Amino acid sequence: MTDIKKETEDISSPFRGLGGSFAYNALTAAELKALVQRNVDPANEIRSVVEEVIAQVREYGDRALLDYAHKFDKVDLQKLYLDKEELAALASTLLPEQKQALETAYQNIKKFHQTQLKTEDKVETMPGVTCWRELRPIERVGLYIPGGTAVLPSTLLMLGIPAQIAGCHQIVVCSPPQKSGKVNAFIAYVTQLLGIEKIYLAGGAQAIAAMAYGTETIPSVDKIFGPGNQFVTKAKTIIQSTTTCAIDMPAGPSEVLVIADGTSNPDYVAADLLAQAEHGTDSQSILVSTSQSIIDLTNKALEKQLPTLPRAEIAGNAIANSYSVLVNDLDQAMQFSNLYAPEHLILATESWQSVVNQIINAGSVFLGNLTPESVGDYASGTNHTLPTSAYARAYSGVSVDSFVKKITFQHISPKGIQNIGPTVEILAELEGLHAHKNAVSLRMGK
Amino acid sequence: MTDIKKETEDISSPFRGLGGSFAYNALTAAELKALVQRNVDPANEIRSVVEEVIAQVREYGDRALLDYAHKFDKVDLQKLYLDKEELAALASTLLPEQKQALETAYQNIKKFHQTQLKTEDKVETMPGVTCWRELRPIERVGLYIPGGTAVLPSTLLMLGIPAQIAGCHQIVVCSPPQKSGKVNAFIAYVTQLLGIEKIYLAGGAQAIAAMAYGTETIPSVDKIFGPGNQFVTKAKTIIQSTTTCAIDMPAGPSEVLVIADGTSNPDYVAADLLAQAEHGTDSQSILVSTSQSIIDLTNKALEKQLPTLPRAEIAGNAIANSYSVLVNDLDQAMQFSNLYAPEHLILATESWQSVVNQIINAGSVFLGNLTPESVGDYASGTNHTLPTSAYARAYSGVSVDSFVKKITFQHISPKGIQNIGPTVEILAELEGLHAHKNAVSLRMGK
Repeated sequence: MTDIKKETEDISSPFRGLGGSFAYNALTAAELKALVQRNVDPANEIRSVVEEVIAQVREYGDRALLDYAHKFDKVDLQKLYLDKEELAALASTLLPEQKQALETAYQNIKKFHQTQLKTEDKVETMPGVTCWRELRPIERVGLYIPGGTAVLPSTLLMLGIPAQIAGCHQIVVCSPPQKSGKVNAFIAYVTQLLGIEKIYLAGGAQAIAAMAYGTETIPSVDKIFGPGNQFVTKAKTIIQSTTTCAIDMPAGPSEVLVIADGTSNPDYVAADLLAQAEHGTDSQSILVSTSQSIIDLTNKALEKQLPTLPRAEIAGNAIANSYSVLVNDLDQAMQFSNLYAPEHLILATESWQSVVNQIINAGSVFLGNLTPESVGDYASGTNHTLPTSAYARAYSGVSVDSFVKKITFQHISPKGIQNIGPTVEILAELEGLHAHKNAVSLRMGK
Repeated sequence: MTDIKKETEDISSPFRGLGGSFAYNALTAAELKALVQRNVDPANEIRSVVEEVIAQVREYGDRALLDYAHKFDKVDLQKLYLDKEELAALASTLLPEQKQALETAYQNIKKFHQTQLKTEDKVETMPGVTCWRELRPIERVGLYIPGGTAVLPSTLLMLGIPAQIAGCHQIVVCSPPQKSGKVNAFIAYVTQLLGIEKIYLAGGAQAIAAMAYGTETIPSVDKIFGPGNQFVTKAKTIIQSTTTCAIDMPAGPSEVLVIADGTSNPDYVAADLLAQAEHGTDSQSILVSTSQSIIDLTNKALEKQLPTLPRAEIAGNAIANSYSVLVNDLDQAMQFSNLYAPEHLILATESWQSVVNQIINAGSVFLGNLTPESVGDYASGTNHTLPTSAYARAYSGVSVDSFVKKITFQHISPKGIQNIGPTVEILAELEGLHAHKNAVSLRMGK
């Protein structure tokens, strides 16, 4: 299988579309397994670097953050945050149509996420024994908004809105400073939409450490959210396994799997594959199709569209490292997709309704030929913080659920304790836990 | 603060009730923080042992599991599982009233957990843009049922029932073999209630490694659930950070916090503190009370009840390592409780309704004087797999939610793409992602 992967990489120059090309029926079980394998711990070699950053932040607090800003972000900061007035000044430079677009996205995302906050009914499991769950916000949450080559105001919308709906008391936002010592205007405007009055100027593993342990300026939080590079991801997984601070999920390179058949539009499919590919050279754009002709036409469309892109080099490399899989039918396509467990799944077919129930593993799903991934990335209303690298087998994307706890409650009446008491007594004895039994017997009046 | 802790331990002999005694108002912020601190990574020193176990299971599979059964469980196994007939033979030795108690617990737990499986409505965020979530079971789940000194059939009920309700396709159960090469009859009977046809005979870190990586006999899974000793917990956290296999939550020693006032019954309070304490010497039983008299009476009741317990030595040590906190009123009691974030919270007061809304951080809550923790441990219907060690600040207990993913879907109509398109175009451009923009522009007919 290593051979298959190598072979696909060699094709990358000159550009001829998707680098690899496989037929599902020709793959052995082992080859299939290797094909869907993503590296889940690519950053293991950077563990010691990240551990050192965490140790520095724990020991020196703000001082360490200022030093890292100098070293990594090439800026000497006077203070580690922007306040409400500074954010307002930045936001005021936006054009009206840009503000309107951010507001539309805000409204759609809010409308969808609001439906996720539900009260649950009480259940009387036995006469006099009542159980229920109540939602409580996680009190203090930390949102990490990456900077770097692509600044992502949409990520602040995707994390800030559910935090706001959940009712989190303290929302701490960290983002790396630009060389100006500021953040960009779009992010500043989104803080206004969300009613967030401060952005902390910290990036990378040091921002994660600051939110986990707290510094003089940056408060510690109970859960950290947000994507980032390998250093950020490694810091999050270390924090998760060494403190009580939780994380949203591990994050790997972004990926899309497009299922196409004779009813697909190859231009649309190519555009979707490229939208994923422009994120980074390690992005995966997988095409699974019932039709060799659609695969060929998509490759032609890729060749045509690629040169028009500002990020053509990145996208071209990602496409060359990606592949197509030819399948017999849509059922077989879904088998492959469930094994791959894609972050984004596009059913680029008129027949999407016939296969939607077969979806078992995916982060977010885009149905039909008029639903590109990019609508979900920004504005349809769904969340774009999703499980990559096959984590979709066990994880869901971020939602309001991610910002609350569901606490169970129970109340037992005088009649209830007589009803349930004997059962608890027998089971406690059966497990050899006599104090457990006593706690019930005493209340039964024994 | 270290001094305070030491002081509490010295009191342990002769037994005089709760080892530590504090007044909330006399504590500094730092002392308060230290008082609620639990060791979240007690097993760090055993990392290398656990890493070696994982490596052996990955390399030698079944052979390693058989060797570990010989070494740790003192049994030479012929095969690594018990089948349906063997489980039925074991289960048949139970008394009718024991079977009935397990069935009652099964019914109550099922009744409560069934209400957690909900269909969600579709939301039209803009005309022609429809978003919704659908639940899908995690396909393959692994349940770890501890053996050792206290065998816990209740844990198999608490994990097996939500897995069954979620519709998980494959439910793999691992439990350490007894010296007879079997499991106990109670666990065998619960497999019958759940329709589980096989139990794999593996315990400790090796069982976790087997379910994460798979062996010739034990299938690999997508998510691993269940409590265990320090080796099991360490194995789970390593697996979580190095594979795509998820875990339910980290687990530390069990704990209860009882809030009592003048309306409490000190005998009941003492019984509840002891029920927690008999789990292990590292259990915490915390009493928070508005009344010094109730604290004194509870300590007297502890002295009286303790000698009657078969596990008196364990419980006595745990109580001596625990403490009471005197507070002004129930509001202050809730402040302390939320800071502590207890796994189990008992509101042992007639006035529970006045404070229930102040609960922010807790795993499961027991309301009023007639609701002991032990009803939730076994049979009220709520789940007993709960966040310990202050993880309740960010984690919920196990529920049907833990066994499903919520996948987001979106569908866009021809009208919808015209409505949402311009917004996505502006936002994509704003983030410098032109292929994202293209994917929308093409579909708008541009």
